[in-house]
Amino acid sequence: MRATVMHAAGDIRIEDVPDSRIKEPTDALVRITASGVCGSDLHAYGGMPAAYGPARMGHEFIGVVEATGSEVTSVKAGDLVVSPWVIADGTCAFCREGMHLACAHASYWDMVPDEGAQAEAIRVPFADGMLVKLPVAADSALIPSLLTLADVLGTGHHAAVSGGVDAGTRVTVIGDGAVGLMAVLAAKRLGAEQIILMGRHKARTDLGREFGATDVVAGRGEEGIAQVRELTGGQGTHVVIEAVGHKPAYEQAVGVVRGGGVISRVGLPQYEEAPIGLGSLFIRNIRLAGGAAPVRAYMAELLPDILDGAIQPGKVFDRTVGLDGVADGYRDMAERSALKVLIKP
Amino acid sequence: MRATVMHAAGDIRIEDVPDSRIKEPTDALVRITASGVCGSDLHAYGGMPAAYGPARMGHEFIGVVEATGSEVTSVKAGDLVVSPWVIADGTCAFCREGMHLACAHASYWDMVPDEGAQAEAIRVPFADGMLVKLPVAADSALIPSLLTLADVLGTGHHAAVSGGVDAGTRVTVIGDGAVGLMAVLAAKRLGAEQIILMGRHKARTDLGREFGATDVVAGRGEEGIAQVRELTGGQGTHVVIEAVGHKPAYEQAVGVVRGGGVISRVGLPQYEEAPIGLGSLFIRNIRLAGGAAPVRAYMAELLPDILDGAIQPGKVFDRTVGLDGVADGYRDMAERSALKVLIKP
Repeated sequence: MRATVMHAAGDIRIEDVPDSRIKEPTDALVRITASGVCGSDLHAYGGMPAAYGPARMGHEFIGVVEATGSEVTSVKAGDLVVSPWVIADGTCAFCREGMHLACAHASYWDMVPDEGAQAEAIRVPFADGMLVKLPVAADSALIPSLLTLADVLGTGHHAAVSGGVDAGTRVTVIGDGAVGLMAVLAAKRLGAEQIILMGRHKARTDLGREFGATDVVAGRGEEGIAQVRELTGGQGTHVVIEAVGHKPAYEQAVGVVRGGGVISRVGLPQYEEAPIGLGSLFIRNIRLAGGAAPVRAYMAELLPDILDGAIQPGKVFDRTVGLDGVADGYRDMAERSALKVLIKP
Repeated sequence: MRATVMHAAGDIRIEDVPDSRIKEPTDALVRITASGVCGSDLHAYGGMPAAYGPARMGHEFIGVVEATGSEVTSVKAGDLVVSPWVIADGTCAFCREGMHLACAHASYWDMVPDEGAQAEAIRVPFADGMLVKLPVAADSALIPSLLTLADVLGTGHHAAVSGGVDAGTRVTVIGDGAVGLMAVLAAKRLGAEQIILMGRHKARTDLGREFGATDVVAGRGEEGIAQVRELTGGQGTHVVIEAVGHKPAYEQAVGVVRGGGVISRVGLPQYEEAPIGLGSLFIRNIRLAGGAAPVRAYMAELLPDILDGAIQPGKVFDRTVGLDGVADGYRDMAERSALKVLIKP
């Protein structure tokens, strides 16, 4: 079968690899019909040393079940399914609490040797805990939106839920990438009163307005902070969703959050230490929330809103490629000429 | 009048100073009948450069109102009152939300020139928003417990509330100083199922057990973390209250918190940057909460439990001195031969 392999930063190839196949009785084998390129894939694309490669890529996918292990009961051959980006057993105390990242079996597609979602097929461990059946055809117009359940929509929703967004909340979203835009949509869906999107790519911030942003701030650093404060009577917003992951974005979040408010992070931190002392968080009682998103926990809540058209998160996909176009897709996302790429293997 | 003045680290003197008096129509003048030495006073005692002094000291007090400004309506001469450690107007949007630290008028006794609670009298700004009447006599046996409302009890309560402690919660409290012990008491009061106190001073941890600690862990660093994990089936606790403020205590908190849990900080951070990235907080969705405590917001809830004897937080005071004994009190607290000193001016 064919699959995407990254050999080093910037070096994406489509290669013939051994066919994925059932290994454990709890596995499912899925023929992939749609997968995505994620902003986090771009971190590797931008900086992965050759010594880390070759690495199979991709963690967002929809596909048709081809076969199941002997213990799998919830899906069967022929079912169209979506998988979460994080692997977890779905049955332990942490998974039942919706905290799949703390599952003793938690793992990531990027850490599973010889599997990846930017490929023709994939072996899914813990299939009963992982896969969610989709009541549509594999060529449904809803596929792009349903594919966002695998990561970015659930991640944006996690940011909003972790931040405590509800009716009347004022929210700043830092970052106009796919996750930032999903956070806008999620905050709107949860009733936020004001949603300030900080971003400077007009096509993206326009989509942000369509998703519910009430204000757009293009400024960064002190300039951007001043603009958000001006939009909020000097106070800043109750919730700040940080959907970038770089330290200046965190520092910007500290600057625009209201006293007693929450910084909810879903951008993968590209730093380890950051300011959390007296002047940054402590005196003003700023809370820090969020983290890697247990998107599987949110699928049951979000799926109906996609099926009935209440939300259209699939609009973040602005390019579709076959496997042969994956390398171009990475390049276009890295150069920001594409927002998010959908792959039809 | 006589007051406590710090001239430099370790140099505490009792001096004759100008009498405190009403300056603003919203002021009250209070004759102090009981005040405390706080752990945060010891930070200055340990390290204040002479250039910062001379500084009036003390921010915890109970006293009798002697006079009030023309606009004060809630207290009158003769009332016994307690004041919070943080000055705030009590009327703005932030104060009404219980977020007094974000009040535009927020200030600290240590920043008010020529006033301090380790003295014979004090001028209280925003008296209507600050002072709470106490329905007991100035020589009541409840005074030590009531004095904890000014800071340490409210701070421990803030730690527990910010951490989301309720029935069934497992809690670790790091630090066996007065605030740590108050956090134990507060967690118990809120129904915590397990309260692990990390501390190594037996007299203090014994008081912690009396306040509700179910386990005591004397180990620090990796050893302490392993002991807490052993007490919690390997998982750590839902809530970790960090009541020390030094970076190793924060790192210990990261080590003992359960996936999806909360680190609630009330120890005054003696650091600005600390680990909050992928490995420390992000992947496991650890939240960071707490901060400087808006204790005024909690007085109405906590006062009845002191008056009816349900809680006896005053047990943290193990030494009583007059003004002449204040310097000895600081020294004894710094040397840990006293847990917390009560001053009767």
